Amino acid sequence: MSFNLYKNSFLCSSNDYENSKVVLAGIPMDFTVSFKPGSRFGPSKIREVSVGLEEYSVYQDKNLFNKVFCDMGDLELPFGNVGKCIDIIYEFAKKVFNDGKTPIFLGGEHLISFPLIKAAKEIYGDLVVLHFDAHADMRDDYLGEKLSHATVMRRAGEVVGFNNLYQFGIRSGSEDEISFARENSNIFFVYEIENLFEIVKKLKNKKVYLSIDIDVVDPAFAPGTGTPEPGGLTSSQFLEIILKMKDLSVVGVDVVEVSPYYDISDRTSLLAAKIVRELILLIE
Amino acid sequence: MSFNLYKNSFLCSSNDYENSKVVLAGIPMDFTVSFKPGSRFGPSKIREVSVGLEEYSVYQDKNLFNKVFCDMGDLELPFGNVGKCIDIIYEFAKKVFNDGKTPIFLGGEHLISFPLIKAAKEIYGDLVVLHFDAHADMRDDYLGEKLSHATVMRRAGEVVGFNNLYQFGIRSGSEDEISFARENSNIFFVYEIENLFEIVKKLKNKKVYLSIDIDVVDPAFAPGTGTPEPGGLTSSQFLEIILKMKDLSVVGVDVVEVSPYYDISDRTSLLAAKIVRELILLIE
Amino acid sequence: MSFNLYKNSFLCSSNDYENSKVVLAGIPMDFTVSFKPGSRFGPSKIREVSVGLEEYSVYQDKNLFNKVFCDMGDLELPFGNVGKCIDIIYEFAKKVFNDGKTPIFLGGEHLISFPLIKAAKEIYGDLVVLHFDAHADMRDDYLGEKLSHATVMRRAGEVVGFNNLYQFGIRSGSEDEISFARENSNIFFVYEIENLFEIVKKLKNKKVYLSIDIDVVDPAFAPGTGTPEPGGLTSSQFLEIILKMKDLSVVGVDVVEVSPYYDISDRTSLLAAKIVRELILLIE
Amino acid sequence: MSFNLYKNSFLCSSNDYENSKVVLAGIPMDFTVSFKPGSRFGPSKIREVSVGLEEYSVYQDKNLFNKVFCDMGDLELPFGNVGKCIDIIYEFAKKVFNDGKTPIFLGGEHLISFPLIKAAKEIYGDLVVLHFDAHADMRDDYLGEKLSHATVMRRAGEVVGFNNLYQFGIRSGSEDEISFARENSNIFFVYEIENLFEIVKKLKNKKVYLSIDIDVVDPAFAPGTGTPEPGGLTSSQFLEIILKMKDLSVVGVDVVEVSPYYDISDRTSLLAAKIVRELILLIE
Amino acid sequence: MSFNLYKNSFLCSSNDYENSKVVLAGIPMDFTVSFKPGSRFGPSKIREVSVGLEEYSVYQDKNLFNKVFCDMGDLELPFGNVGKCIDIIYEFAKKVFNDGKTPIFLGGEHLISFPLIKAAKEIYGDLVVLHFDAHADMRDDYLGEKLSHATVMRRAGEVVGFNNLYQFGIRSGSEDEISFARENSNIFFVYEIENLFEIVKKLKNKKVYLSIDIDVVDPAFAPGTGTPEPGGLTSSQFLEIILKMKDLSVVGVDVVEVSPYYDISDRTSLLAAKIVRELILLIE
Amino acid sequence: MSFNLYKNSFLCSSNDYENSKVVLAGIPMDFTVSFKPGSRFGPSKIREVSVGLEEYSVYQDKNLFNKVFCDMGDLELPFGNVGKCIDIIYEFAKKVFNDGKTPIFLGGEHLISFPLIKAAKEIYGDLVVLHFDAHADMRDDYLGEKLSHATVMRRAGEVVGFNNLYQFGIRSGSEDEISFARENSNIFFVYEIENLFEIVKKLKNKKVYLSIDIDVVDPAFAPGTGTPEPGGLTSSQFLEIILKMKDLSVVGVDVVEVSPYYDISDRTSLLAAKIVRELILLIE
Repeated sequence: MSFNLYKNSFLCSSNDYENSKVVLAGIPMDFTVSFKPGSRFGPSKIREVSVGLEEYSVYQDKNLFNKVFCDMGDLELPFGNVGKCIDIIYEFAKKVFNDGKTPIFLGGEHLISFPLIKAAKEIYGDLVVLHFDAHADMRDDYLGEKLSHATVMRRAGEVVGFNNLYQFGIRSGSEDEISFARENSNIFFVYEIENLFEIVKKLKNKKVYLSIDIDVVDPAFAPGTGTPEPGGLTSSQFLEIILKMKDLSVVGVDVVEVSPYYDISDRTSLLAAKIVRELILLIE
Repeated sequence: MSFNLYKNSFLCSSNDYENSKVVLAGIPMDFTVSFKPGSRFGPSKIREVSVGLEEYSVYQDKNLFNKVFCDMGDLELPFGNVGKCIDIIYEFAKKVFNDGKTPIFLGGEHLISFPLIKAAKEIYGDLVVLHFDAHADMRDDYLGEKLSHATVMRRAGEVVGFNNLYQFGIRSGSEDEISFARENSNIFFVYEIENLFEIVKKLKNKKVYLSIDIDVVDPAFAPGTGTPEPGGLTSSQFLEIILKMKDLSVVGVDVVEVSPYYDISDRTSLLAAKIVRELILLIE
Repeated sequence: MSFNLYKNSFLCSSNDYENSKVVLAGIPMDFTVSFKPGSRFGPSKIREVSVGLEEYSVYQDKNLFNKVFCDMGDLELPFGNVGKCIDIIYEFAKKVFNDGKTPIFLGGEHLISFPLIKAAKEIYGDLVVLHFDAHADMRDDYLGEKLSHATVMRRAGEVVGFNNLYQFGIRSGSEDEISFARENSNIFFVYEIENLFEIVKKLKNKKVYLSIDIDVVDPAFAPGTGTPEPGGLTSSQFLEIILKMKDLSVVGVDVVEVSPYYDISDRTSLLAAKIVRELILLIE
Repeated sequence: MSFNLYKNSFLCSSNDYENSKVVLAGIPMDFTVSFKPGSRFGPSKIREVSVGLEEYSVYQDKNLFNKVFCDMGDLELPFGNVGKCIDIIYEFAKKVFNDGKTPIFLGGEHLISFPLIKAAKEIYGDLVVLHFDAHADMRDDYLGEKLSHATVMRRAGEVVGFNNLYQFGIRSGSEDEISFARENSNIFFVYEIENLFEIVKKLKNKKVYLSIDIDVVDPAFAPGTGTPEPGGLTSSQFLEIILKMKDLSVVGVDVVEVSPYYDISDRTSLLAAKIVRELILLIE
Repeated sequence: MSFNLYKNSFLCSSNDYENSKVVLAGIPMDFTVSFKPGSRFGPSKIREVSVGLEEYSVYQDKNLFNKVFCDMGDLELPFGNVGKCIDIIYEFAKKVFNDGKTPIFLGGEHLISFPLIKAAKEIYGDLVVLHFDAHADMRDDYLGEKLSHATVMRRAGEVVGFNNLYQFGIRSGSEDEISFARENSNIFFVYEIENLFEIVKKLKNKKVYLSIDIDVVDPAFAPGTGTPEPGGLTSSQFLEIILKMKDLSVVGVDVVEVSPYYDISDRTSLLAAKIVRELILLIE
Repeated sequence: MSFNLYKNSFLCSSNDYENSKVVLAGIPMDFTVSFKPGSRFGPSKIREVSVGLEEYSVYQDKNLFNKVFCDMGDLELPFGNVGKCIDIIYEFAKKVFNDGKTPIFLGGEHLISFPLIKAAKEIYGDLVVLHFDAHADMRDDYLGEKLSHATVMRRAGEVVGFNNLYQFGIRSGSEDEISFARENSNIFFVYEIENLFEIVKKLKNKKVYLSIDIDVVDPAFAPGTGTPEPGGLTSSQFLEIILKMKDLSVVGVDVVEVSPYYDISDRTSLLAAKIVRELILLIE
């Protein structure tokens, strides 16, 4: 048929995997066997609202029309089976990194960053992780579980080396995990966000993976998330930070914990979509 | 690539147009140039929530797994240009009917029924339209416009003949349009819904097109719609009516006016998805 | 100036008090000194959504265009001073009844019915009150207060005589008040609603005041109210009841306890507006 | 201190476990390690809104003031560890049944019914389970898991014998589980609800456990639940059913799947609280 | 009658057109033939919530009580007929400007600014437009339409001269329109907002028209709007900007794109009302 | 019984009044006889969401686990009887202060601060009140009432001496009350917030009572409140202010006007809970 029919895809994206440098994929895992709760619908909503944005960015004076990038849809996952999910995500990420793509993964919950970072590490060897979040996510286990949204950066740090982990915007954590982070990773609390600009300069020649939990932004700007924590960044502050990433060599990105059901205004998803647009435009 | 990736599609649907008898397509037209308001996001939400249903129907003891049907995604439309939209929808519908398919169109606003019914009429010749709605939609023009969601059944009646138009659940209309309907079409007000069961018997050998405005159901059961009108059917009543359709020879269907933004519980979209599931199962 | 400018008024209403039989007025009292909570905004929202209805009623085959009725706006009240509010409402109602009008008062909370009924009683002498509500509102006092939304029908009964008070749809009350109602007024619980049709026949030659608490309808159909009580009527049932009122000699009406903030779908206000439209049309 | 201080408890409840026949307890399990999603907050919200009801029931002409019953608060559970949760719930239920109490458990998700029914079975030997739900919950496993909200009635049936399991209001299930239920348990679909009244008569001399998933009621009446399914009972219908339970010898109850976050009107929690009030009043 | 009755009007406003310098009027146009979607209800909601503010401003130490200004209500418009709407708005504005008033128009959608600015230009000859918005609104046409909310500042610039158009807070636009604005108008992106203070000094002797799209403020502060765009001003920043306007000779104002339905907290309408209060107070 | 059962209490709190320095108590007064509207449910919601926070504070590097503090639940109040409520609250506060505790009271509406401050004054003699609010609350009477949420700081000032009253964040008030405050108390408008840091230094040796109306924060960060006023502090700014309180000798605190029903995201309650956590940690 010759009619134009589309499925829900990110603004201006194509299906052309081969010729795309940047590749979008949704990872709708949220650990729960029931129907509605949470970030499972994040990728779908981010795509949906992305059409409310312009293809052109006034910040970068660049246009998505001039980029070939593809939106692969959502990865199919066996909900409820954490282990198998992790494996599938890992295999998928490995393939994408192997193909030389720069993936932008849309969560889903934060645990997905672990297999993604692991795959990136295996391809790139030397890898720095920049982690934006309200929560440190540095527990060794959570209620006995080693793999949890609350342990993901501990696992990631074990993979890339804690000295290669930079955490920004943090304003919540258990005493143990914060203590661990202070000793091992590079943790910057929300009131130390200015340090980021120095760090970015320092990391110019490194391969960088960005892990963005939307709750790094204050719940006034991003109410649609599972564990909102007051006292966060403004959306303007965070967009400024995102634009700073153009000085880095970004090899992979995830944007996680967007839970559309808690935000009838959709500004959380819109902010996520805008972050994604800016990232697509600044990745070479 | 060999990974399973999916885009937002209706529960259990495939991409196999050739082998599908039933074909789903979204028609996200809502006449408005701005971003958010309304039924434009109906098809996408209906697909999204459909995964919260089972593939199996206890009402019909049938299973979507045993059906080959495809979800074609949404038709791409030049928003704001009513005339061109109508043309594109008409051409698309004509193709689908020509291919011998039984389409289920997801709106979008009610005006889309006009090109759909026109296309069906041209293929099937003798056609009966069953119209479920709170509103008669029988104005000759609306603020001077001949093509409007408020005139759609007047236009449809001109195409199929008003004697072939049956309207059910009606509880709102201007004096003129109701008067016109009383004289020309077969109109049954909401308190006359029982007549439907007799009508269905009478229409057994006819080709039938179903046009379902979700607001035929009371806003308690379907709050997510643009012009809610109290005093409607219950969802149970309407599901019972849908099941009666199995005695008819249904050649096309539309389900329109689902506006997800006005219903945070998603029960409107869920009801629409359940209606669609039952219709897929009862169409031979 | 010759431009058409309007203020928020009920669908199809005029400013012509002199020539109007039916007169609408809002009584935005809700007992509370703070800004937002409750039925204070009921009248304004009912007017606003009324334009979403048609002027014509399919139920009665009558048209508001053929009626002269006026919407006087909202009565200005000293919020927080119950006694003075009651006085102002009473004086206002007295004037309207004295002028031979049939007022439809939009609440506001239920206590407003007391001064309204008192004024009606003084003009009409022999008066029957039909009370539709989930709650009996028959306490002698509430936390020591004689004038409260929970005592309003006790006060009203003292004025018109309890034998002239008919209560329908009741499904909540304290043991004392229900016991009092069983002995003194004519109380019909929600599961006895069918009795209404007999009562209406019996009251044909009486002057009747209708006091309608929107919560008589189930919160599925009217979630926008202060004290929702599950197990109520459907909107269809209640519209049928309203239509039965055409056999009565209705001299005054109030529709109370619409709290728009608890209903983003506006179906509560729409139902109230539809009730008002039908009442305007059936009052001679 | 002599001041009256209270914690959030059910309307009119005491702390007097010893002298209470009926005992309320919350089981805030919802399988998920994150903060917000779901029925975890059900018990707390049901207690909170219960004070919006009267202590007196017009349906039974009985008063909670004349009942000694206690509200024990919520059971403390290790969130995320399904097995340990089940054990704790089981031990707790065993103790309560052993003490000769009639517990009313507030969920939480439906899986909690399994340890509760198991404990009841061990104390009472011969036990009938009446199950009210939109979903059959009769899968043998769900994504490989034997213990899931989707398998709970399969597990319960294995404990009490499928012939002792009666299921009402069902309108959703996989083909396999419905087929299994048709062959093994006593399943009545939503359109067969009238059969309940006959069944109740038949079960008069039996010890009965009631398992009530709030989604048996239509989402119009109970939108605050995790897996809403259109086409359900009205709240009036279900209250009538609850009142029928007075002819049975009820030894235990659970009311599950109330998810307050999806219902800003709180009518779901109010309905659950009203059901609980009526059950307390009808249990001898 | 001597009773105080009021219709929904702005806090402290009168009906005295003759003696008012400042005149408020609602322009409830939102281009759409259906009932609910959008800014049509903006003026009515802004009036409604205005009573939640004080008449006195701590920022200016001035009091509305000392100002005579009138609220004329909403202009009656033929919904759906763009051309006729524009004509009516234009004629109305012309009259108001001719009478020497300083109007504050409440939208409605942004297109209304075109006839308003055109009328102002014709009266005042030399006119500067200050435009506050997230979007440039500088397209030459939008989907072929010359008159659209997306083209309004292009049309306005053609009327007043692009050199007289100053745009602030912009953070979204197509490449073409931004490029056009860069070359022709005076455009300042959101991160250049500080330039405003210099510009204001420069414009001291000019007649100035203010066109304020509420979405210039971040959706955290103004979620109730049709096309929210993250990364905007805070409400404090924008109030500070409004207060700077006292150094200018403001001859007309519009405040547009308030869509109350997307903001249950009403803070968008409250912010609009507060902006209007401050503007009334600072206009001589 | 040996099972762990809990009632809704603040994160990490105990029941051990004797050994607690800090004591939490809810004062659910909101002046209104009806069910739902407002801050009555504030304390309960603050407790509920507190479990979404960590026990550890990254700001102070301190842990609630190392603090013994108790949550006494909510004070039982005769709703609707203002005078008696004030008496009960006063007696309760007197007892707590007498026992040498540092109470943190959770409102409820702002009027509760009057009896609380009165009790504190009587125990501590020399007392300074720090008042954080959008509104001055300095009226002498409100609609004739001396005791009102709008007069509370006038009453408080009469008790402690207006020179001992410091007001921060104010951005709304009547002309009279602001004028009174300017002459008598120490009032700092929202744009003068920086002065707080100097004031804190000056008050180091004083006994200080903190009265925190959550609406001091902008409604973007705290939409769940009764009288939102745009133009307020960010949550980050206010958390920074709270941390400054560690330099003071805080003897009592209230956090008032949290109205959970207007904030489905719960970020208002979360912010209140976070403020409470920080205050518990900084009180010696």
